[in-house]
Amino acid sequence: MHKIGRQTIRFPNPPSISNTASIVGPKEAEGPLKIYFDKVETDDTCGETSYEKAEECICYTAIQMLLQKEKLQATDIDYYLGGDLLNQIISTSFTAQKIAIPFFGLYNACATFSEGMQLAACLVSGQFAKNVIVSSSSHFSSAERQYRSPLESGVQRKMTAQWTVTGSGAIVISDQQKSPYITHITTGIVQDYGVKEADNMGTAMAPAAVETIIAHFNDTGFQPKDYDLIITGDLGTIGKEISMDLLSREGFDVSNIFTDCGVEIFNEEQDTHARGSGAGCSAVVFSGYIYKKLRNKELNRVLFVPTGALLSPTTTLQGDSIPCIAHAVTIENEPQLGRG
Amino acid sequence: MHKIGRQTIRFPNPPSISNTASIVGPKEAEGPLKIYFDKVETDDTCGETSYEKAEECICYTAIQMLLQKEKLQATDIDYYLGGDLLNQIISTSFTAQKIAIPFFGLYNACATFSEGMQLAACLVSGQFAKNVIVSSSSHFSSAERQYRSPLESGVQRKMTAQWTVTGSGAIVISDQQKSPYITHITTGIVQDYGVKEADNMGTAMAPAAVETIIAHFNDTGFQPKDYDLIITGDLGTIGKEISMDLLSREGFDVSNIFTDCGVEIFNEEQDTHARGSGAGCSAVVFSGYIYKKLRNKELNRVLFVPTGALLSPTTTLQGDSIPCIAHAVTIENEPQLGRG
Repeated sequence: MHKIGRQTIRFPNPPSISNTASIVGPKEAEGPLKIYFDKVETDDTCGETSYEKAEECICYTAIQMLLQKEKLQATDIDYYLGGDLLNQIISTSFTAQKIAIPFFGLYNACATFSEGMQLAACLVSGQFAKNVIVSSSSHFSSAERQYRSPLESGVQRKMTAQWTVTGSGAIVISDQQKSPYITHITTGIVQDYGVKEADNMGTAMAPAAVETIIAHFNDTGFQPKDYDLIITGDLGTIGKEISMDLLSREGFDVSNIFTDCGVEIFNEEQDTHARGSGAGCSAVVFSGYIYKKLRNKELNRVLFVPTGALLSPTTTLQGDSIPCIAHAVTIENEPQLGRG
Repeated sequence: MHKIGRQTIRFPNPPSISNTASIVGPKEAEGPLKIYFDKVETDDTCGETSYEKAEECICYTAIQMLLQKEKLQATDIDYYLGGDLLNQIISTSFTAQKIAIPFFGLYNACATFSEGMQLAACLVSGQFAKNVIVSSSSHFSSAERQYRSPLESGVQRKMTAQWTVTGSGAIVISDQQKSPYITHITTGIVQDYGVKEADNMGTAMAPAAVETIIAHFNDTGFQPKDYDLIITGDLGTIGKEISMDLLSREGFDVSNIFTDCGVEIFNEEQDTHARGSGAGCSAVVFSGYIYKKLRNKELNRVLFVPTGALLSPTTTLQGDSIPCIAHAVTIENEPQLGRG
């Protein structure tokens, strides 16, 4: 057994993240990370007739770019794992139909990208696959009308609300000897602290992020100082502050190395309120920014912790609180075994 | 690498399906398989205030029954993999919150159960887990109002329509030496032959079932005669006929050993039209009927092929056709390696 604790696997033969691709919409391309994304869609409809089809288009395009970068054909890929925020994960399912790779559809909301990384890493490390593609996407306009209100309604957004990222990130996890590598994964247990406001998801998700990060430290024996960067998925400004506070109370001082993909992707002037969110948020920030920093050795060991709010409009209408999850992945340029 | 073809893995150390649990609603308990189910809810609301909460209740109950049967605590289970048909797989996600097991949410529509079996088998065989629970559920009334029309509308159902099973099935896949075992898995590639009618899903899904079954035969070298039973997920009467016809044209005569979970769960007199469907359909037929026949050696080698229609109400309204998938799992009492 490769488990080193209730929630953590340490890979004896760490799989490689051998390449990534990222595509974002116009607003994301005006943010601080603009230089890191591979492609920008200046028209957020991608020339399609609906926002759902636009999201499918960016999902498909990210994978096509990835295959081209790696000089791989779809037939070289053993499995495609992915998901998105739309009902029945249609962006991903329709993309799977076009690319014709054996397909596992996933849904852990905005933690779907790291859910896919974890399962893909097990498939490669367990010698069930040589190359696995993982992708996740979201689109501001398709998410707004499904989860909140159609844009045409012009509903005012609360200051706690986050802005769903328009973008898609895709990666190849493979058995190549090529850094960086996935060395540990810590799988989330769903947390629900009773938050019911669908426009305050950073607050809802923070305990899930904290639970997973602490489980990771406990299972592995790592400490904050062992990481160059610990970056959550899409807690936004409010959830980030809560998480740092909760971690500090539990004795983990992460102040110098902790941030959040949703915080990083937009700047203060972009008027997103609590910054970015969405299944595509952590996917593009990883595939663009984090991966390139790892490749050029500006970062050497990262804990990547996408967070997901597992609500639906139906559960919100029925008065339920928001169950949340976070899955953590350790990515290292030079794998060193944990002390767990 | 344990792949023996584009879509198939052969497990060198086949994982055990060490136990199952099934729960169904009142209509399913009037069908031909009634004696095989562990529990019947005579009230399809389960005493809850909504059909969605009722579905969550049966999903949770199946897992509780399973843990009791196996004398296991939730803390003995390494991972919970599951999904359902509701938007954002809320039945499963809310169950995951209650049972507090590291969670991977899945969505491949009515093929979710075998998607989970495949990934769970890889986790166990790859020594990433000792015990994994897989579950899938559906509920007639929650599905009707989400995918079609609320029951209160009294809309007449087409004769090609199928009846979503109210039920949940859950299994433990483990590293125990206890038959039956999962010996091979063949993962589906999404197929779309242009069917657009959301009330004729058997027709839409048949090509996906056939593609996966033929890929399985080609990858493994098995022939129909090697199986005691080949059973698809929820093609219903129409999809079953189409599949047998397509297989026959490709040279595979399965006439004596082929059926479908949706066909078996209801009888002609129950007025379901094209019989059963739903993510819970194959889950309860497997967890109830098939598993018990395997345990008492009436069946010794089964190819189980749940099928999924990856549409959403949004894609139907936008005029899209229905992408479909099928995942096949070989379950054997006495593992014999394929010739592939």
